[in-house]
Amino acid sequence: MTSGPPDRDAALELDSSSPLAGRRDLFDLPAGIVYLDGNSLGAAPRNVSERMRQVVDREWGSGLISSWNTADWVNLGRRVGDKIAPLIGAAAGDVHVGDSTSVTLFKTLVAAARLRPDRRVVVLEPTTFPTDAYVAAGVARTLGLELRWCDPADPARTLDDDVAVLALTHVDFRSGAMYDLARLTREAHDVGALVQWDLCHSTGAVPVDLSGADADIAVGCTYKYLNGGPGSPAFAWVHPRHQPTWDQPITGWFGHARPFDMDRAFEPAHGITRMASGTPPVLALSALDAALDVFHGVSMEELRAASLSLTDLFIDLVDTRLGDTFDVITPREHDRRGSQVSLRRDGAYGVVQALIERGVVGDFRTPDVARFGFAPLYVSHADVFDAVDHLVAVMEGEEHLRPAYAVRNPVT
Amino acid sequence: MTSGPPDRDAALELDSSSPLAGRRDLFDLPAGIVYLDGNSLGAAPRNVSERMRQVVDREWGSGLISSWNTADWVNLGRRVGDKIAPLIGAAAGDVHVGDSTSVTLFKTLVAAARLRPDRRVVVLEPTTFPTDAYVAAGVARTLGLELRWCDPADPARTLDDDVAVLALTHVDFRSGAMYDLARLTREAHDVGALVQWDLCHSTGAVPVDLSGADADIAVGCTYKYLNGGPGSPAFAWVHPRHQPTWDQPITGWFGHARPFDMDRAFEPAHGITRMASGTPPVLALSALDAALDVFHGVSMEELRAASLSLTDLFIDLVDTRLGDTFDVITPREHDRRGSQVSLRRDGAYGVVQALIERGVVGDFRTPDVARFGFAPLYVSHADVFDAVDHLVAVMEGEEHLRPAYAVRNPVT
Repeated sequence: MTSGPPDRDAALELDSSSPLAGRRDLFDLPAGIVYLDGNSLGAAPRNVSERMRQVVDREWGSGLISSWNTADWVNLGRRVGDKIAPLIGAAAGDVHVGDSTSVTLFKTLVAAARLRPDRRVVVLEPTTFPTDAYVAAGVARTLGLELRWCDPADPARTLDDDVAVLALTHVDFRSGAMYDLARLTREAHDVGALVQWDLCHSTGAVPVDLSGADADIAVGCTYKYLNGGPGSPAFAWVHPRHQPTWDQPITGWFGHARPFDMDRAFEPAHGITRMASGTPPVLALSALDAALDVFHGVSMEELRAASLSLTDLFIDLVDTRLGDTFDVITPREHDRRGSQVSLRRDGAYGVVQALIERGVVGDFRTPDVARFGFAPLYVSHADVFDAVDHLVAVMEGEEHLRPAYAVRNPVT
Repeated sequence: MTSGPPDRDAALELDSSSPLAGRRDLFDLPAGIVYLDGNSLGAAPRNVSERMRQVVDREWGSGLISSWNTADWVNLGRRVGDKIAPLIGAAAGDVHVGDSTSVTLFKTLVAAARLRPDRRVVVLEPTTFPTDAYVAAGVARTLGLELRWCDPADPARTLDDDVAVLALTHVDFRSGAMYDLARLTREAHDVGALVQWDLCHSTGAVPVDLSGADADIAVGCTYKYLNGGPGSPAFAWVHPRHQPTWDQPITGWFGHARPFDMDRAFEPAHGITRMASGTPPVLALSALDAALDVFHGVSMEELRAASLSLTDLFIDLVDTRLGDTFDVITPREHDRRGSQVSLRRDGAYGVVQALIERGVVGDFRTPDVARFGFAPLYVSHADVFDAVDHLVAVMEGEEHLRPAYAVRNPVT
């Protein structure tokens, strides 16, 4: 950044010279909106609508039952997984997609614990996304394990040889802080523990190299930076070394070695397919399959560079134009930052609402955090400039103090 | 039925006088097809396509994150459940929809077993749908329970006071035979056991009265007779007396009493909402929500009468025109028959394939069963007549013996 606040022309210049210029046209974004909530729900890629028409009218409506073969619905989850694989440093054939994030966290955490049958502890960090903690508590109760909370600043310190699994979120949903995935994986392995990585707030915006980090298990959401649509199915990756003995608890027919033989006894399928339980959610998977095409031809390095350029600009403008109005709780160091910036202040709920009123969509996280997500495929530097312009106007006009905003009613 | 085989005019007459006449127009069925596989994948209701356009383009594309409130995505699963409730004799507010059938079977079976903590046995019948058996085996292994197989002809005989849960499918997927839900529920209650009913092959074609039967737990598929689309989410019903102590294992944030407070500790939501785990699958639920409108104004008595009229006609025509070519394994007694008819014969795979070649779509179940499902909202008596006409032609022409059909490659 140059000294002094960048102006809008400088932001436009950054956009036009970006290798991602033009990607935004692949999305159906409403006019007049600055959308900084793709870390909660990604925008709709334009091709999803046509793909849904195709799957409903042609594949289901005309093809009927035959589309399990002719449209290869049977392997749709695998094909979607293969599109996600390069975004997370995974090999094709090692990513399963199908259940909700919570269900996927449950299945993988049970299976991970079963890989360490002599150990009785699951370690979590206390500021993890709520569903991760709730699911881990459910797993611990079901399997008779103990939950142990770690220090978020140093999760490895709490590890010992009682620990079966360390469950961590790569990028924190509230602060946007990012863990060193490779280092923590090493530290867990040093004491014989496995790591379950939650990639919900990183996949699609932050490069992840699961193979390079020699990671064990990863789970991620597809409706944030992967733009799969509201409630789209989650993915799971399991390192190939764990797949032959991988034993997830919801043994359904689509995880069977030969589902259509309809044997009475369960025999798990080879490889990651054993992660499957029920019939794949074809409509949802089809939307996600189409949505992932927006990543075609994008390198993760370009994506990361764009993301950092956007969050750098946002932080710089907040610093220079708003002084100490907000506490920037997102790390300023690049290697500790995801793709969002979080601002803390009493009354943050009113700030977020006043911005939404002006067409700048971020979100609020209790008790006092305003979150702004920067999905690099469709958020521009001009958006960042305009968002801060509106933020300055909100604070100057005290719009955030309107009585209507005294009642908090946040959602997702 | 009159004596002698009914002719096509008689079939057309039955169609035109049916109270369901006209319902078929609500479906997008391809021309020239007799679709008798709605017990595997229901046909596409015409309004689903438009609803998907609305949810993708307007709710997601334009509304973005705000649609969680403005389109009430948060309660979509509940609203869908309320549309299913009258089809199964349930009260509004007692039906949850969201995960796959296998995941829903898992969650409900664990919770059911937890309601009988002093009992260690789950009873299954050996010809149940494969995923039911696989899931029960997974639950038994996870909780340290014992699986016990019952005599399909008399499931109650194997019950004793070690039995926590009797898990039964209401209508058998292979034979189409139907259990007496109320009687078996009583017999299980007599020994203090609970019953988990799998309604996959009955809901939407066979009236079910869960409340009247004082049932405990039911799970059902929505992509068969409920026409929700391939892999659409399953439903679960839990009797209100069990809801306050209902303890399902996948405690995710959407089953929390106050998800958006993001507390660290899990507190289950009131009522059936505690069945929820992850973020609801909005696209899939929206398709199902639209699809269920085809039941609006249909009484379950009319639906059942139409279903029996269709299966009666099919059995009558097979009897009179094909003699003992096939073994009709579906019960002839109305009170033991679902909404499908199954014909057994060596080489049934070839029969099914030859019929599909002629545009009559049934399916094959290993090793020797040809299944024909009669979805009363869109299958006509004329379809039944034409299907048997083609079946007669297939057998007379020995089309089922074509070498290509020697290789079995069935799907779903």
